[in-house]
Amino acid sequence: MPDFVLPAQINPPSRLLMGPGPINADPRVLRAMASQLIGQYDPAMTGYMNETMALYRQVFETHNRWTLLIDGTSRAGIEAILVSTIRPGDRVLVPVFGRFGHLLGEIARRCRAEVHTIEVPWGEVFTPDRIEEAIKRVKPRLLLTVHGDTSTTLLQPLAELGEICRRHSVLFYTDATASLGGNTLKTDDWGIDAVSAGLQKCLGGPSGSAPITLSPQMEAAIRARKCVEAGIRTQDHQDGDDEMIYSNYFDLGMIMDYWGPERLNHHTEATSMLFAARECARIMLEEGMDNRIARHALHGKAMLAGIQGMGLETFGDLRHKMNNVLGVVIPPGINGEAVRQQLLDDFHIEIGTSFGPLQGKIWRIGTMGYNARKDCVLQTLAALEAVLNRHGLRTVQGEAMQSAWKVYDSVRSVTAPAKG
Amino acid sequence: MPDFVLPAQINPPSRLLMGPGPINADPRVLRAMASQLIGQYDPAMTGYMNETMALYRQVFETHNRWTLLIDGTSRAGIEAILVSTIRPGDRVLVPVFGRFGHLLGEIARRCRAEVHTIEVPWGEVFTPDRIEEAIKRVKPRLLLTVHGDTSTTLLQPLAELGEICRRHSVLFYTDATASLGGNTLKTDDWGIDAVSAGLQKCLGGPSGSAPITLSPQMEAAIRARKCVEAGIRTQDHQDGDDEMIYSNYFDLGMIMDYWGPERLNHHTEATSMLFAARECARIMLEEGMDNRIARHALHGKAMLAGIQGMGLETFGDLRHKMNNVLGVVIPPGINGEAVRQQLLDDFHIEIGTSFGPLQGKIWRIGTMGYNARKDCVLQTLAALEAVLNRHGLRTVQGEAMQSAWKVYDSVRSVTAPAKG
Repeated sequence: MPDFVLPAQINPPSRLLMGPGPINADPRVLRAMASQLIGQYDPAMTGYMNETMALYRQVFETHNRWTLLIDGTSRAGIEAILVSTIRPGDRVLVPVFGRFGHLLGEIARRCRAEVHTIEVPWGEVFTPDRIEEAIKRVKPRLLLTVHGDTSTTLLQPLAELGEICRRHSVLFYTDATASLGGNTLKTDDWGIDAVSAGLQKCLGGPSGSAPITLSPQMEAAIRARKCVEAGIRTQDHQDGDDEMIYSNYFDLGMIMDYWGPERLNHHTEATSMLFAARECARIMLEEGMDNRIARHALHGKAMLAGIQGMGLETFGDLRHKMNNVLGVVIPPGINGEAVRQQLLDDFHIEIGTSFGPLQGKIWRIGTMGYNARKDCVLQTLAALEAVLNRHGLRTVQGEAMQSAWKVYDSVRSVTAPAKG
Repeated sequence: MPDFVLPAQINPPSRLLMGPGPINADPRVLRAMASQLIGQYDPAMTGYMNETMALYRQVFETHNRWTLLIDGTSRAGIEAILVSTIRPGDRVLVPVFGRFGHLLGEIARRCRAEVHTIEVPWGEVFTPDRIEEAIKRVKPRLLLTVHGDTSTTLLQPLAELGEICRRHSVLFYTDATASLGGNTLKTDDWGIDAVSAGLQKCLGGPSGSAPITLSPQMEAAIRARKCVEAGIRTQDHQDGDDEMIYSNYFDLGMIMDYWGPERLNHHTEATSMLFAARECARIMLEEGMDNRIARHALHGKAMLAGIQGMGLETFGDLRHKMNNVLGVVIPPGINGEAVRQQLLDDFHIEIGTSFGPLQGKIWRIGTMGYNARKDCVLQTLAALEAVLNRHGLRTVQGEAMQSAWKVYDSVRSVTAPAKG
């Protein structure tokens, strides 16, 4: 091999991540990840796994037994649910209001589903009636929804969809990667059969672990396709009747057997990521889910007020904005990427760009997880205004900051992240 | 929700993990993981990604451009390669000498391959002739091999297979999860088209990231199936001719576009796991791959000598034993699980059990990564002998330890893990 110069140790620059995620991890999560490893079947490890299941039942507001982690990024959680549930030829309905609806449709197509989509323009969401009408027409086996789509910053109302799905015998899945922990999501009350998430948004952790939850109905659909790996199969094991699913890694039947009392070996659990996911949930529940969501609402509102005070236009239907991310229209004559670059270079603050139909048209600014804080909001507004001024955009001095402060002054005490 | 008592912070018991993996992570790797996050497209992040590619080229001993990480455990790396390469109906040949050969066959079946297996009894490996004979008969598109199979502790010789595959126009894959970093593996010199690994064995890190490398031939096979996600597609993007692969998460065409200069968004890279993988590689290359493999050979030999000195039988063909794991036959009249339990309870030392045809018949003892050290070997031997004595097995006092020491005394200076 040619001469090779060893790069230096990891030493990332200090950044304030105010984009659509990933955001800065809570330092407690990073410390949890630095814990030494233990064996897969060590009682301490299986104890942590069981505690993690119990913690995420609280986070998802569910009694679902099968509430566990998929070892991969948030789209690993999506794919595990879809590939384990969808049989080739199954009809699925996907309401698309941004990039991640397209992703659900694509993954379902790779599962050989018959995919039906309905679409609204980016910046809008669906009414329950519109979705029910499509369900009646398509008669899908599954409804695949995105809860919060960061590509448009919007939040699809889900509360009424479970009842509609029940009425039409449709299995109801939602991707809550971007919304969970910063926006209300009631798995059981809303009748959702499966939810997947990730750590890198409102949960305040790193990407790389995907918490999911499955209703008994969803479990039954998956168990019909149960398969036990040849190398560890015994006479007691029977396979399900349905066709073997297209993935071993994402075979939720096997993954349930690994997390369940049988502890049948599948993958080797990503221990450090489990430590991270467990600490994310502990921090959330210490704060309280309602308090946490209220905190996201408050700082999201302050960011919105500040941006409006700066005279900037926002993107999309604000009645359906996620608490944790805001689309800001790049003003005419301003080079959006140059502004982002200067924010990063001179302030070490990152805000998000956009893709698809919104590429070059909006910035996306996040206020989520560990960074849903007054100091982060005010620093970002001050820095953005200064950079915009430098790029020739005139603002009314003080208006942005005063508008944000007004939001904070309107609440008696600012909710801060829990300390524990 | 019912009253919920928050569990305490992560605080795992201190264990010495001397099983077949996971083993204790190098503390430097744990510290690297505790670094704060940065954005996906931060120049520091893309710089770390490029450095990680370069580091793993050295580890895999390859010039392959596409040397990168799959975000998941080691079987995520296996599945990414198989599902991205195998087209439905493709013939594949899998030489099975343990559990993980069965796993390769199963994953290939899920990819709708026509799977042909050849088998040897657990404890043996294949001669190149035996594999070539099968290749001539089956005429597969791919040969899927396991390099080191921890289920049997054996190492399949691969050096001659690349030339055989080239002669018969077969793509050659190996799963090096258990072997890489502790046993010689020369990707380019041996003509291997794709290799996958994991961090939790000889690399001394946690499970959750799978380094892989792909030859230009393998890349071409994958590119023929290229697909760009609908939500981020532009007019410049063309899809490949072959059928869309069964997975989005493991679509290596997309993953290459994310790691390559186009930086086309796919998943959100699991930053903390990338930090871990990068540090694992840095530690290995600081020590030097040859030194590291020699260290694994030395401590594996000392463990073997100690076990034989204790009067215990070993499992499998020792000429083909992996450096980093040893199968030990559970002596008649000894309850294997009770011994493991007492080692864990009273010494906090974990050794491995077995599954499949070896269940209840052998223990598996590892000497790998951070734990391929004199102190770990001697502590494990002393503890195991004491526990066996307590369970009624008589050994000749001092023989086990003296046998291990003799191995160490036979080398002038004991190779220790690099400090840096």
